[in-house]
Amino acid sequence: MTHHSHNGGTSMFTKGYRRKSKPAARPGAIHIPAGAIKPTIRMTCYGPAELEDKQNCTFEDVQKMRGKHPVQWVDIVGMGDETLFEQIGKLFGIHRLALEDVVNIPQRAKVENFKDHLFLVCQFPRHGKKHTFEQASFFVGKDFVISWREHPSDCFDTIRDRLQFTGRALRDMGTDYLMYALLDALIDSYFPSLERIGDQIDRIDVELEGGPSRPLIIRLHGLRHDLRLLRRIVWPLRDAVDSLTNRHEWLITPETSIYLRDCHDHVVRIIDSLESYREACSDLRDFYSTEVGNRMNEVMKVLTIISTIFIPLSFMVGLYGMNFDPDVSSWNMPELKWRYGYPAVLLLMSGVTIGQLLFFRRKGWLSSFTTVNNKSHANGEIP
Amino acid sequence: MTHHSHNGGTSMFTKGYRRKSKPAARPGAIHIPAGAIKPTIRMTCYGPAELEDKQNCTFEDVQKMRGKHPVQWVDIVGMGDETLFEQIGKLFGIHRLALEDVVNIPQRAKVENFKDHLFLVCQFPRHGKKHTFEQASFFVGKDFVISWREHPSDCFDTIRDRLQFTGRALRDMGTDYLMYALLDALIDSYFPSLERIGDQIDRIDVELEGGPSRPLIIRLHGLRHDLRLLRRIVWPLRDAVDSLTNRHEWLITPETSIYLRDCHDHVVRIIDSLESYREACSDLRDFYSTEVGNRMNEVMKVLTIISTIFIPLSFMVGLYGMNFDPDVSSWNMPELKWRYGYPAVLLLMSGVTIGQLLFFRRKGWLSSFTTVNNKSHANGEIP
Amino acid sequence: MTHHSHNGGTSMFTKGYRRKSKPAARPGAIHIPAGAIKPTIRMTCYGPAELEDKQNCTFEDVQKMRGKHPVQWVDIVGMGDETLFEQIGKLFGIHRLALEDVVNIPQRAKVENFKDHLFLVCQFPRHGKKHTFEQASFFVGKDFVISWREHPSDCFDTIRDRLQFTGRALRDMGTDYLMYALLDALIDSYFPSLERIGDQIDRIDVELEGGPSRPLIIRLHGLRHDLRLLRRIVWPLRDAVDSLTNRHEWLITPETSIYLRDCHDHVVRIIDSLESYREACSDLRDFYSTEVGNRMNEVMKVLTIISTIFIPLSFMVGLYGMNFDPDVSSWNMPELKWRYGYPAVLLLMSGVTIGQLLFFRRKGWLSSFTTVNNKSHANGEIP
Amino acid sequence: MTHHSHNGGTSMFTKGYRRKSKPAARPGAIHIPAGAIKPTIRMTCYGPAELEDKQNCTFEDVQKMRGKHPVQWVDIVGMGDETLFEQIGKLFGIHRLALEDVVNIPQRAKVENFKDHLFLVCQFPRHGKKHTFEQASFFVGKDFVISWREHPSDCFDTIRDRLQFTGRALRDMGTDYLMYALLDALIDSYFPSLERIGDQIDRIDVELEGGPSRPLIIRLHGLRHDLRLLRRIVWPLRDAVDSLTNRHEWLITPETSIYLRDCHDHVVRIIDSLESYREACSDLRDFYSTEVGNRMNEVMKVLTIISTIFIPLSFMVGLYGMNFDPDVSSWNMPELKWRYGYPAVLLLMSGVTIGQLLFFRRKGWLSSFTTVNNKSHANGEIP
Amino acid sequence: MTHHSHNGGTSMFTKGYRRKSKPAARPGAIHIPAGAIKPTIRMTCYGPAELEDKQNCTFEDVQKMRGKHPVQWVDIVGMGDETLFEQIGKLFGIHRLALEDVVNIPQRAKVENFKDHLFLVCQFPRHGKKHTFEQASFFVGKDFVISWREHPSDCFDTIRDRLQFTGRALRDMGTDYLMYALLDALIDSYFPSLERIGDQIDRIDVELEGGPSRPLIIRLHGLRHDLRLLRRIVWPLRDAVDSLTNRHEWLITPETSIYLRDCHDHVVRIIDSLESYREACSDLRDFYSTEVGNRMNEVMKVLTIISTIFIPLSFMVGLYGMNFDPDVSSWNMPELKWRYGYPAVLLLMSGVTIGQLLFFRRKGWLSSFTTVNNKSHANGEIP
Repeated sequence: MTHHSHNGGTSMFTKGYRRKSKPAARPGAIHIPAGAIKPTIRMTCYGPAELEDKQNCTFEDVQKMRGKHPVQWVDIVGMGDETLFEQIGKLFGIHRLALEDVVNIPQRAKVENFKDHLFLVCQFPRHGKKHTFEQASFFVGKDFVISWREHPSDCFDTIRDRLQFTGRALRDMGTDYLMYALLDALIDSYFPSLERIGDQIDRIDVELEGGPSRPLIIRLHGLRHDLRLLRRIVWPLRDAVDSLTNRHEWLITPETSIYLRDCHDHVVRIIDSLESYREACSDLRDFYSTEVGNRMNEVMKVLTIISTIFIPLSFMVGLYGMNFDPDVSSWNMPELKWRYGYPAVLLLMSGVTIGQLLFFRRKGWLSSFTTVNNKSHANGEIP
Repeated sequence: MTHHSHNGGTSMFTKGYRRKSKPAARPGAIHIPAGAIKPTIRMTCYGPAELEDKQNCTFEDVQKMRGKHPVQWVDIVGMGDETLFEQIGKLFGIHRLALEDVVNIPQRAKVENFKDHLFLVCQFPRHGKKHTFEQASFFVGKDFVISWREHPSDCFDTIRDRLQFTGRALRDMGTDYLMYALLDALIDSYFPSLERIGDQIDRIDVELEGGPSRPLIIRLHGLRHDLRLLRRIVWPLRDAVDSLTNRHEWLITPETSIYLRDCHDHVVRIIDSLESYREACSDLRDFYSTEVGNRMNEVMKVLTIISTIFIPLSFMVGLYGMNFDPDVSSWNMPELKWRYGYPAVLLLMSGVTIGQLLFFRRKGWLSSFTTVNNKSHANGEIP
Repeated sequence: MTHHSHNGGTSMFTKGYRRKSKPAARPGAIHIPAGAIKPTIRMTCYGPAELEDKQNCTFEDVQKMRGKHPVQWVDIVGMGDETLFEQIGKLFGIHRLALEDVVNIPQRAKVENFKDHLFLVCQFPRHGKKHTFEQASFFVGKDFVISWREHPSDCFDTIRDRLQFTGRALRDMGTDYLMYALLDALIDSYFPSLERIGDQIDRIDVELEGGPSRPLIIRLHGLRHDLRLLRRIVWPLRDAVDSLTNRHEWLITPETSIYLRDCHDHVVRIIDSLESYREACSDLRDFYSTEVGNRMNEVMKVLTIISTIFIPLSFMVGLYGMNFDPDVSSWNMPELKWRYGYPAVLLLMSGVTIGQLLFFRRKGWLSSFTTVNNKSHANGEIP
Repeated sequence: MTHHSHNGGTSMFTKGYRRKSKPAARPGAIHIPAGAIKPTIRMTCYGPAELEDKQNCTFEDVQKMRGKHPVQWVDIVGMGDETLFEQIGKLFGIHRLALEDVVNIPQRAKVENFKDHLFLVCQFPRHGKKHTFEQASFFVGKDFVISWREHPSDCFDTIRDRLQFTGRALRDMGTDYLMYALLDALIDSYFPSLERIGDQIDRIDVELEGGPSRPLIIRLHGLRHDLRLLRRIVWPLRDAVDSLTNRHEWLITPETSIYLRDCHDHVVRIIDSLESYREACSDLRDFYSTEVGNRMNEVMKVLTIISTIFIPLSFMVGLYGMNFDPDVSSWNMPELKWRYGYPAVLLLMSGVTIGQLLFFRRKGWLSSFTTVNNKSHANGEIP
Repeated sequence: MTHHSHNGGTSMFTKGYRRKSKPAARPGAIHIPAGAIKPTIRMTCYGPAELEDKQNCTFEDVQKMRGKHPVQWVDIVGMGDETLFEQIGKLFGIHRLALEDVVNIPQRAKVENFKDHLFLVCQFPRHGKKHTFEQASFFVGKDFVISWREHPSDCFDTIRDRLQFTGRALRDMGTDYLMYALLDALIDSYFPSLERIGDQIDRIDVELEGGPSRPLIIRLHGLRHDLRLLRRIVWPLRDAVDSLTNRHEWLITPETSIYLRDCHDHVVRIIDSLESYREACSDLRDFYSTEVGNRMNEVMKVLTIISTIFIPLSFMVGLYGMNFDPDVSSWNMPELKWRYGYPAVLLLMSGVTIGQLLFFRRKGWLSSFTTVNNKSHANGEIP
């Protein structure tokens, strides 16, 4: 049922901003959310010349490879192990507050600059049967990148494929470029969502010209909800990516900075689209309202024309349905006895009707029906 | 009764911005509000190695411990004693304007930098039967923290619990970190309020799809009021916390600054939620309006269809209810004497009715009823 | 009559931004407004040890005391003497444009920094039977403060009272602190106006829940007008006071700057209230609109239910009121001659009515009446 | 006819932003608009001691006086001579793009700083039968001011009058002060337009309280159009004047800068008024809408009350108008033969009517009429 | 059919922001869009003294002329050849990301500063039967300008014409000036679109005063769509052109910078127009809504007046149509036997009607009709 899908969106949105850790808890305390899956680690170590890729690593594997290669990429999926947080934090010298943010889902997208690593966290859409969001956290040092997600997904597979080839930028450049590549992959996953929303808006627009109906407005209401949600997630992302392109020169080379600028362009384009969709939704809702008003107006006109024509006529026929006795006196409804009484009344009624029609024509009420038929023609003038 | 709770909110809000002190009074004059409770002092002095916690202190106790420990935390609840203000002000060298702001409730959240202490004031929600706000003021010097509230509450109890343990950051670090911990506890108390509002919005959304009703719009109106109030209190808090993270390096160490940045993140997240809720409320109100319009439209259609079908029919039956005497002349209602007069009229009326139904179908008025039933299906397309 | 009071507001507002001096006149030309009252001068000269207060001074008195005391406060009320402007301007070395601004009422609040004096001009509310504004101009030099108003008022009396006491800040500090004290007194005079508006909004809110009525919307319309007016006057004041706290160090000591920051806080609080009231007014207007829509909906439902039930019934009774002669043929209304014709018709009509009621119940139109009665209960859920 | 005036406004507004020169034409090309009048030159050369004013100069006159006096003011009216542009441009060393902007009407107000002259262009209202705008361009060098307008007007006459007097600032100061004086004169010409709009708004406000009517909303629609137009013209003017007060010190002395700040104040005041008028217009439109809604509601109530009372009564009288034959059986309308049948029916109908009136009273529909009459009283509470 | 044209606009708009390259593809990968036409190259090399213009060049021609002339302008139309991108990129040292942006249509307008060339990309309207946009990309180095478009158009023909003449700025100045000239030509192509939209708005305004009709609102809806689209394209252009005027001094001379400032003025003017049109559209939609409300109100009044007059009359005539038998008792409808029964009833009905008309007049419902006729007169007051 649709309502569930919509409601699911709503509840995710609320959940999203519920702070998981106990209020007034010790800062930096890591509270594993209930039902979190056990983490699996995939480690990819590489340099211009070498590449080692190992699935299902243990923490000891990670510890062993520390500092052996120019880039050590540790990709962790799952949060259900508090000791792993402690170990990773210790091994790579990660600040407790950053580790806390990995677990406390969802976070606003942000970049934090710690002494010898950057911490980057952002949300990205997961495409499945339901429209949900996933959080990805990155720790980027001079020689390591740690990515941490809650659920398994294939969003980084293309990156791993590209790592197979020597002589590509990805292999020759440092951790900053890997971070860029991962971020770019996540940002790209927004575009299908945008397209789906854009298609929805187009479809509603087309259907709306066929006339307003309640399901349209409910779909529009759902779209606005989704746009609100997306917007809240993407706006902080812009600031985060922007700060990556401008600051943190100790980690990010000018060459990578050019690529991050490109990334920033994409985020700005997403925001442009969202704002444009929002306006389109508002315009559609206004259009819907005027359409409902137009319809109501037309309905009222029909009612009024019919009523106004027939109510006086009904009065007249009622008049001559009265049972005053014409035999009592010649004052009592002598018309009933007239030779041409009935035709005279019919004539009078015709006259009244014609008069009313002329009145309506002067008011332009009758022409409205023709105008509606002219629609396709008038419409043709839109530039 | 609900209205009281709502009105109570309103009056608090108004009261909040009534300036208590006499207009054009001497600046720095301390006017104890009528009905203020007698202050009770709880003093907690500590350093990495020692901890002394004393309830129900007198001012002399505070004076005696001045400068004896790395951190002297004086937690005062209640405002009903003007001399205490004078004494505290003198002992810790606090500016009169800051003391005045402690009493003049409510203040906008702000941070003031005096020569040798920071003054920080903010509002936080109190959770009880009614939805009210409490003001907390802090004076933070190199070796003391004074917190001053109007009513007793348990919001600082977790902090005191954490102080029991040696080897924790709270014990090892200075007054700036204690200030952070207190502030963090207050900010955390906003989240339950937000959740409650978010739940309300979700519930209204679900109920609204079942059809618009007056209680819904009254609840929505109340929610908007609460959001307005919260927003007015939280926005200045953001600036205050932001200024803590950036300035005042004489007091705040870089290490604490990282924690305050986290605090700032929480405030921004609260503001994000509030703005999002505001938009959701606006969307719901618009949705409500279109729903009311839709309903009205449907009601009008039913009225118009029924009227338009029966009014002409009633005219016709009225016509043949006229008492023109067919015996006077053959011009007078000869139909009444026709053999098949009655069936002919019935046939004519059926024809008129069918014609009108066709007209309505062409206008799409009849289909609207089916469309409404299609709702759940159409709804299923929401992405 | 109310309308006058409202209109009075409007015309003041228009007048307020009418430029008094002839277009393209010589800049700095002083055009005394018609009907201006003769100026009266009250001079208060003081230092930490001495105080001289003289009412109804002449210009010569002022000239004689020039430079004799640390602070020479010249408080002028009335504008009807062009030569006084010339004399004062010459004696204190005041720029002609500043003098022009004193006369050209109303000015936007602003601070102008001339070579050896500050010029500060602002509006403040006068509390009387009507809601009007008064302009106060200040010239502040190293050893003099000139305040110039159009009409007598008691807003500075508390300042003079406070000057009586030695050992107070006001006596020990310089002209900058006196300027602060005067400004603070003026700003305090805004709070009663705000309270009155807040009370109005609360009252309208309560009355509106009892149902929409035209007087409510007219009062709301008047409130919006007043808020627009106040806002236009207070916003520039904020910038003016802000500039006082940050710049002009040649005149304003750091100590006074702390007090001016407090002043600035008050202005910001006024603006916060105004914005909040504006939003509350908008919400109330929207609430009013939805209430009117709700009412209309309910009215329409009653009309439709009554019409829809009785119009077909009326048709039926009209049908059997036709005068077709059953004696002519057995085709003509044989029902009239049936034994149970009348009861059968009554039964049929009952059946139609029950069917319609069931239809209305399915549509949920009947339940709306009960829902309205549930109001107080549903309302109880507001957090 | 009004519509022309309105439409005239609209077309000016469109024309205003039509670029006259051929698309992709050589930049700096001067295309004299068709129908431009022949230029007439008036030259006023002066210094503290001397003044020479000559009407209907030729270009040769201008050339001869070049550099002979401290200030050479060349006031040109009319654009119909391309060679004059070339000559003036060459003589005073004016950039071609600036000359192009003189002809391409209308320009956004702006200040351009060329090597040895400032170029300033702005729009100002012309007061005549129609509401149009005129463009004025100024070239200001160390010893010359060129002003160039399209049509003759008297806006600079006061300046020339003031130049007659020695010992005035205008004579003693340089070209920057003359520029200020000319600009001030143009800005002053906005105030009568503002007043007219303010008066209109007041009048609509008053009339609207008497009840909504279509002409009011059409006038309001026209006012919004005018405000949109004015706003579009004045906003860039603010930036232009602001840049004059802050930059271009090579030309503008600090003394003149004080006067320009005054000018800037006036522009800001105009903008304040425009924004305030815009809001007032919005409020009036909303007020109009609610008034229309109120009226509709009242109309509907009257209709519903009348219908609801009489439709059941009509049904009842129709019922006893049926022609079932009471003689056939005692089941057929025995009431007709009852002794007190008629009075019983009348009583029944009275009962129904009273019941309905009570129902309406409980719903508060009847009271609305009294409330409307209470209007003037309720209104009296507006503060 | 209109709807197609509108829908075409919508789909272009969606397409516009669909990212063509495969998600998570290698950055800098060039994916030629399907159906791209084969590129044709036109090369124009020139300096103050020489000019060589060659159509249908090969890449080898371009390579040969590299560095031979002060300015080498390579104008490429069409994208269907991936090797050309590689070759051009290598020859001129262009960054891969920039080349990717040439193909990935549409891009937001932007300026990117690479080591030894600027990359500028923007959209401009193509004028044909349909309203579409074309993307133009420019690479500008010290001695080369590459312009790259998707489809052939004549927008640069005037530039080539102007290049024929020696002694013009275009020939004497460098690549920066050529870039300015090309950009200026593209920006000029916006003005006809603006004019068309302005004309549409004027026409809708005029027609709307004749009364609201559905085609008007559909055209307005289409206009808003177009404005949204244009706005989204022009806003980034402003920032791009602004950055050209301020930065990149290594390429852009101060002289050219003056011209670019002029360009920037034009973009700002376009934006001004768009914003103004948007507001005009909003005003028109609001005006439409109030007009629909007015109409509805008038329709309702007619219905109510007619119903309210005739429904009681119908009741009365129905009353005397009842068949109570006056012969049974003198209580049963004795009026029917009165001598003046019928005239009395007619009189009573006349009285009721007159009473109701007076009631309507007091309510001001009848006067509305006259007011509407007064329209043209009232309208005449618009300033």
